[in-house]
Amino acid sequence: MAEKPLILITNDDSIQAKGIANLVEAMRPLGDLLVVAPDKPQSGMGHAITINHPLRLKKVSVFEGIDSYTCSGTPVDCVKLAIYEIIKGRPTLLVSGINHGSNAATNVLYSGTMSAAVEGAIEGIPSIGFSLLDHHSGADFEAAAHYAGEIAKRALSQGIQKGVCLNVNIPKGRPEVIQGVKICRQGTAFWEDSFDKRTDPFGVDYFWLTGDFNSTDKGEDTDMWALENNYVSVVPTQFDMTAHHLISSLNEWEF
Amino acid sequence: MAEKPLILITNDDSIQAKGIANLVEAMRPLGDLLVVAPDKPQSGMGHAITINHPLRLKKVSVFEGIDSYTCSGTPVDCVKLAIYEIIKGRPTLLVSGINHGSNAATNVLYSGTMSAAVEGAIEGIPSIGFSLLDHHSGADFEAAAHYAGEIAKRALSQGIQKGVCLNVNIPKGRPEVIQGVKICRQGTAFWEDSFDKRTDPFGVDYFWLTGDFNSTDKGEDTDMWALENNYVSVVPTQFDMTAHHLISSLNEWEF
Repeated sequence: MAEKPLILITNDDSIQAKGIANLVEAMRPLGDLLVVAPDKPQSGMGHAITINHPLRLKKVSVFEGIDSYTCSGTPVDCVKLAIYEIIKGRPTLLVSGINHGSNAATNVLYSGTMSAAVEGAIEGIPSIGFSLLDHHSGADFEAAAHYAGEIAKRALSQGIQKGVCLNVNIPKGRPEVIQGVKICRQGTAFWEDSFDKRTDPFGVDYFWLTGDFNSTDKGEDTDMWALENNYVSVVPTQFDMTAHHLISSLNEWEF
Repeated sequence: MAEKPLILITNDDSIQAKGIANLVEAMRPLGDLLVVAPDKPQSGMGHAITINHPLRLKKVSVFEGIDSYTCSGTPVDCVKLAIYEIIKGRPTLLVSGINHGSNAATNVLYSGTMSAAVEGAIEGIPSIGFSLLDHHSGADFEAAAHYAGEIAKRALSQGIQKGVCLNVNIPKGRPEVIQGVKICRQGTAFWEDSFDKRTDPFGVDYFWLTGDFNSTDKGEDTDMWALENNYVSVVPTQFDMTAHHLISSLNEWEF
């Protein structure tokens, strides 16, 4: 009989989040699970790693019957510690999330959830980040957990090409509103930021980062379009950031 | 007479680093300068943004005759504060660095220096990250500063296509060892991490992230190859991380 696959689970909302609990339950039938997740929220940490401070790793009992650890660092630190310190090898599959909030379009770059999946891809591990378009701590994860299980099953049976991970976003709402799954490209968008400037009790200014997500990308092949139309979006996401199409024109620059 | 270009300068090694001082001097002849840089080292912060804490911004006198600010956040926070709070508009050019240490190959993902440039690209600003292959705080930046000036001049005169920034790495050594400039693709490599496990005075373990950078990518068109052969490497770098070539095969997954 084939050995059960080892599935590494992480996130960026911390081990206490409802999203990772739902991801654990969705993965439970698919293999042996290992959870290594941040001990506090790490949203917006992008691909950050901890190099100026030491890291702490703590064995915890959070999910019944599942080896679980918290890490004091970022989601990418969690992946590195899992591979090089706990497993001392590579899991069969890495899943990250389920994030509370969208990681569609350009958000992939800021996302700790997706950076954990990208780190998995760099390490040659089939990896998927899952995000639900609902920020609330008590969000309804039923549809998201269902699709996480279905997509992870496909990844286990069919594999994911080396160098690529999947960015999966799930619309908010009950399972019956979801129209299906669409394979998409990353939409082009940016944050029109605004800083909420305040003055502390000591007379010194400080700023909160806020903003609106803006897009002029009207393509119907984007993750944004799919989500607006109640499809689950799946974007194959690579860590090669080279703009290959520009290499020849830059060769015209003379030095 | 044409208005002078406004050049925004940031980095990830903090405003005190030798690398940013060299970048400021290299840019001085090219336009009006604005410096917004972290108040402490932010290496390895990737594309992190600060959302769970407020940010501080402080006007400082570091570079003679140049408006300069420190920011308590990440390099990407610096770019956002510069655009949306200080300039309230977009600079003509954004330059980041000169980083103390390589950001070639997969390092682009972990790099605060390059994430600032990628953020510039998301905002539609011609942006360049510069890195010198020497980690030392007292590194010799003469060659790096020279090429930073030359490449920034080309970017100002010829522009950089929207959605793309440049990842420029400069070999270590005196200017005369450098063989020229090569336009490259991002090399494929990964960190073979190892954690240095220690025990604190209270009997609790902690870990330092260390590792070796490994590559099996033997292409002569990579930034790693160029740098090993004493060329300055220039990789056009985009924020669209879609693996477009995989969209059709993923469409064969049935749901």
